[in-house]
Amino acid sequence: MSDNTSQKTVTAALVIIGNEILSGRTKDANLGYLGDELNKLGIRMMECRVVADIPSAIISAVNDMRATYDYVFTTGGIGPTHDDITSECIAQAFDLPFGANPEAVAILDDYYSPEDRTEARYRMAKTPEGAILIENPVSKAPGFQVENVFVLPGVPKIMQAMFGGLRHRLIGGQPMVSRTVTSQVPEGKAGAGLGELQERYPDTEIGSYPFFRDGKPGANVVVRAQDAALVDIVVDEVAKLLVSLGGEPLIEINS
Amino acid sequence: MSDNTSQKTVTAALVIIGNEILSGRTKDANLGYLGDELNKLGIRMMECRVVADIPSAIISAVNDMRATYDYVFTTGGIGPTHDDITSECIAQAFDLPFGANPEAVAILDDYYSPEDRTEARYRMAKTPEGAILIENPVSKAPGFQVENVFVLPGVPKIMQAMFGGLRHRLIGGQPMVSRTVTSQVPEGKAGAGLGELQERYPDTEIGSYPFFRDGKPGANVVVRAQDAALVDIVVDEVAKLLVSLGGEPLIEINS
Repeated sequence: MSDNTSQKTVTAALVIIGNEILSGRTKDANLGYLGDELNKLGIRMMECRVVADIPSAIISAVNDMRATYDYVFTTGGIGPTHDDITSECIAQAFDLPFGANPEAVAILDDYYSPEDRTEARYRMAKTPEGAILIENPVSKAPGFQVENVFVLPGVPKIMQAMFGGLRHRLIGGQPMVSRTVTSQVPEGKAGAGLGELQERYPDTEIGSYPFFRDGKPGANVVVRAQDAALVDIVVDEVAKLLVSLGGEPLIEINS
Repeated sequence: MSDNTSQKTVTAALVIIGNEILSGRTKDANLGYLGDELNKLGIRMMECRVVADIPSAIISAVNDMRATYDYVFTTGGIGPTHDDITSECIAQAFDLPFGANPEAVAILDDYYSPEDRTEARYRMAKTPEGAILIENPVSKAPGFQVENVFVLPGVPKIMQAMFGGLRHRLIGGQPMVSRTVTSQVPEGKAGAGLGELQERYPDTEIGSYPFFRDGKPGANVVVRAQDAALVDIVVDEVAKLLVSLGGEPLIEINS
């Protein structure tokens, strides 16, 4: 990417909080969703850290990343159980008081009948002081925003519904356009030509992602840039290269 | 986790190199696999970072993590194309010369017929000086180890085959035993009781992972510890708690 392009890039990062993701018990589905949705807004996911349910790990990841990227998202650890420690960690990361958020309390009061108003549930109404709530249309307990950090739940369905409601708070740039050329030409044959194309078109990013299909190697060549016309030109060049190497490239319209 | 337990913990971290994972184009499958396999060896995955194909990002992630954890694994970016920059970054991270590894060259010479010996493919024979190779039974191009850092490819099938061959180099501790109790008792009802159990059994980790099933909330309560008998005791307590709250808990033998 040229310096010119990178100046315009709005960046984001994700902190996934969860022992269950690290142990392999649960597969994360939030990085892919957010990477994709943010790109549509012209915001580029630059880094993701998966950290354990340990306060120092959460706090240092959040502080590292909020200083480095335009937007930081966290997923996981904001439920009603003892292992949900994200909200308190965010307060510590910002050195803010942590306690019941009157607006969040009102939301839960409205949702739960008196017999369901457990102390555990009202843990979910605690935020760092001054946090701006993020509405939860599925199960009501809100997320929240402090400065450039957006605190979301780990359950994909709820996270996605809440992201829909905070989208308008984000100011993006030009989305990256991406097209993919797939062929059974092995990377080892296409490598030299792809490297030359990358040098000739420095304002694009040409990525090559190998796969095995029916026991034979091939690769998806992904061309990305903010300029759609430039992507089309480079995709055309990639396809010609692969044909010249005996391939039958398949070009996706958009990917 | 008590101090006593954490002293025995052998730790690992993973650096995933790949724009395609950050953009949402490709779903990572390596964290879950390694988290699970390492646990069988008594090694605990403590952190994972997904970084872009940018040298400074790769180098600083590797250097941060190799200083913090017993073992570091990297996946991705060791193929034959211009965007495969992991190996050179590892050399820079360790401040080692980078060049053709004679043993790796011999492996590729043996595998490729003279007309297939492209310059691109021989990029895959370059390693930091003194690196110990990791055999690749699928597509031959090896990974490598420098000190406590293991450099592996991103394609899951190849990564898994190579992990099989390096497993014996890892010295683990006592594996964590894990059992799961699933029920439709919402976390908001079980939260207080689970918190009390966690306090009573500090040598276990009790995690609660909510889900929606047929539109109704429920949770998987996961009990983990190195002591299998202790896990059984706590699983029993969790099940009793959930029954007392009107649930019909389902207990997994092992999870």
